Amino acid sequence: MMQQLLLKEIKRKKSFLCVGLDVDKDQIPLDLNDEPDIIFNFCKRIIMATAPYCVAYKPNIAFFEAYGLEGWKSLEKVMGFLNKEYPEIFTIADAKRSDIGNTSKRYAKAFFEYLDFDSVTIAPYMGKDSVEPFLEYKGKYAILLILTSNEGASDFQLLNADGKPLYERVIEQSKKWKNADRLMYVVGATRSKTLIKIRKLIPDSTLLIPGVGAQGGSLQEVSVNGLNDTCGLLVNSSRGIIYASTGSDFDLVAANVAKDLQKQMAFYLDKKGVL
Amino acid sequence: MMQQLLLKEIKRKKSFLCVGLDVDKDQIPLDLNDEPDIIFNFCKRIIMATAPYCVAYKPNIAFFEAYGLEGWKSLEKVMGFLNKEYPEIFTIADAKRSDIGNTSKRYAKAFFEYLDFDSVTIAPYMGKDSVEPFLEYKGKYAILLILTSNEGASDFQLLNADGKPLYERVIEQSKKWKNADRLMYVVGATRSKTLIKIRKLIPDSTLLIPGVGAQGGSLQEVSVNGLNDTCGLLVNSSRGIIYASTGSDFDLVAANVAKDLQKQMAFYLDKKGVL
Repeated sequence: MMQQLLLKEIKRKKSFLCVGLDVDKDQIPLDLNDEPDIIFNFCKRIIMATAPYCVAYKPNIAFFEAYGLEGWKSLEKVMGFLNKEYPEIFTIADAKRSDIGNTSKRYAKAFFEYLDFDSVTIAPYMGKDSVEPFLEYKGKYAILLILTSNEGASDFQLLNADGKPLYERVIEQSKKWKNADRLMYVVGATRSKTLIKIRKLIPDSTLLIPGVGAQGGSLQEVSVNGLNDTCGLLVNSSRGIIYASTGSDFDLVAANVAKDLQKQMAFYLDKKGVL
Repeated sequence: MMQQLLLKEIKRKKSFLCVGLDVDKDQIPLDLNDEPDIIFNFCKRIIMATAPYCVAYKPNIAFFEAYGLEGWKSLEKVMGFLNKEYPEIFTIADAKRSDIGNTSKRYAKAFFEYLDFDSVTIAPYMGKDSVEPFLEYKGKYAILLILTSNEGASDFQLLNADGKPLYERVIEQSKKWKNADRLMYVVGATRSKTLIKIRKLIPDSTLLIPGVGAQGGSLQEVSVNGLNDTCGLLVNSSRGIIYASTGSDFDLVAANVAKDLQKQMAFYLDKKGVL
């Protein structure tokens, strides 16, 4: 899916909301327990309820892998469902992969060919040749970690690396890579002040912002500091939406939370003149 | 599996060889094509042939994931086979995972509980709370990337981070993490000169050294610079062993290459006084 289509969808829905699918069986409403594939059925109902208000879904691969083969089967079904029923919605494999070139090539094959995701999140530590294999696919995107929302981010990402914070070096280097126009970037919502600086370094890039909601980031700050003329943001909420209710009305409550976020986003998009 | 058992096996086999299972169907001998599960059957024959000469196996998870559900089924069978038939052999999930705490917990569950690996390789970029969930398992190990064998390693790992190369900062920080005694480290074989320095910083840790063979690292240099009194090394070879022959004798040829490496390792172990 090309980025222009994502923008079209952002304008149509007046939303830059990404719904994170971090599926934990222990938190799935009990009345789904009799379904043959709980994980898939939970995702399906969340997707059908929230699709009017969001432009992207982000399955968190770890949560599927934790259930082994069953989890992978569900993931395949979720992706099949999304690509068939909602081809206009952008999909993100939140997988934080990367390895030496010939191995990254395999991860790219897994997520872009086999599962047909539009994008995958990538860890930068191994450098250029660990990321470039993900940039070889037209219409697919690698979303590079630069500054994450967790506490441990300060262990390395903020170190002074030859005169600049390491995350700035990651941005700087990544711009030189082949097909760098297929890069997007992850910036944690808890870093909203640094977002101003990051936006200056990559004014045109799309930023994936996790950490709104459960992790404490503010949608207002993120929007004010991060939006550009073509939106340039995907703000993710996972737990705050999908587990907003653990009753049998979980999908309706999720839709309401998504709708509320969408309304706020419409306001910021309008203010920025994107619509 | 506790590290003491690994050392026992190293002494018994006079080997610190790890065989990497990077299974590429296009390189698997044609005469296996009729088998119901080519990937598993290939691995099984490689394992049965090379087990006398190695102390660890390292399935490269990307190569399995690239085949989707089929690949995951094969991976489960490979791990089931290894844990049943060769419980004395150390297993490494070469997965380069890590994410925020609650997600890393899921990856740990996938590799340590579901697939029952002894260890998993971990990328450090997200810091402390992205790694610690992997250190909560007694008898299981997180193998942290510090200095990798690929060209892109110099993009970030060698940057001067507040006065020291970034990889040294990773070592330094990691020592402070909870259950740090369950950490091992990845150092590329192509970095054998830096290995002397790294060995001084972590004299007692086990280092996983990929890159001997296809990637051009030297076993001699790695052994001389990296061995400690309790061995402290696992040297991996993947393509150099498993694709040494693409004929129907592939397992016998793989065994011969492994045996040759084991003989060289026995020499260095003896010289260092480990045996």
